[in-house]
Amino acid sequence: MKIDDPVLHAEVTEAFYEYERALMADDVAAMDALFHDAPTTNRYGAGEVLYGIEEIREFRKGRGGSPQRKLGKVAITVYGDCFATADAEFFREGSERRGRQTQSWVKFEDGWKVVSAHVSLEGNTH
Amino acid sequence: MKIDDPVLHAEVTEAFYEYERALMADDVAAMDALFHDAPTTNRYGAGEVLYGIEEIREFRKGRGGSPQRKLGKVAITVYGDCFATADAEFFREGSERRGRQTQSWVKFEDGWKVVSAHVSLEGNTH
Repeated sequence: MKIDDPVLHAEVTEAFYEYERALMADDVAAMDALFHDAPTTNRYGAGEVLYGIEEIREFRKGRGGSPQRKLGKVAITVYGDCFATADAEFFREGSERRGRQTQSWVKFEDGWKVVSAHVSLEGNTH
Repeated sequence: MKIDDPVLHAEVTEAFYEYERALMADDVAAMDALFHDAPTTNRYGAGEVLYGIEEIREFRKGRGGSPQRKLGKVAITVYGDCFATADAEFFREGSERRGRQTQSWVKFEDGWKVVSAHVSLEGNTH
């Protein structure tokens, strides 16, 4: 299996940063366009679990935007011709806790889409 | 793209539960065998970030086993012929906080392997 095909890596990296831009701007339509439109698309947020694109949409509509943040380390890997993982650290304004975001991306006919995402803040483990 | 091929879904589901068994038994060799042996394999734990299989191995050797836990909802989806996501809730003994575990699985020549994992406990978001 080919790892990190350079064309695919550039594509999914562009999609990753477009999602970050959309998140910071609370551009809900752009965020929605980057998540796979299916009941199997899930997102675990720092304070919620969301199953299926409809629950994700409802959350975004009611959220009023994400806290502003800066990205730290970003690690993106492409496996084969249609799958990638994006593991990223972030730091929210006014917080010293490290945030972590993982996304699984699949390339469909209409482009790269997130099919599973998990966001959390590093903390005590009990 | 075919979603949830039944043979592949059964394979990766078996691997998912084998990992859970290994985690509860602190069977480090079995856990290691289910993670892709590569510097691109990453794991965000409740209290740590680990990049590459070597950092993951060092963490497991020094950890002394995971807290015991029971799984809650488990959602596994297979995309195409070699990729799957596993999103799962868990509850640790003695804690009412919901745990969340996401894994990205890739089918290599030697079987299904985790290439990215993220574990966190739901909590306050600030």
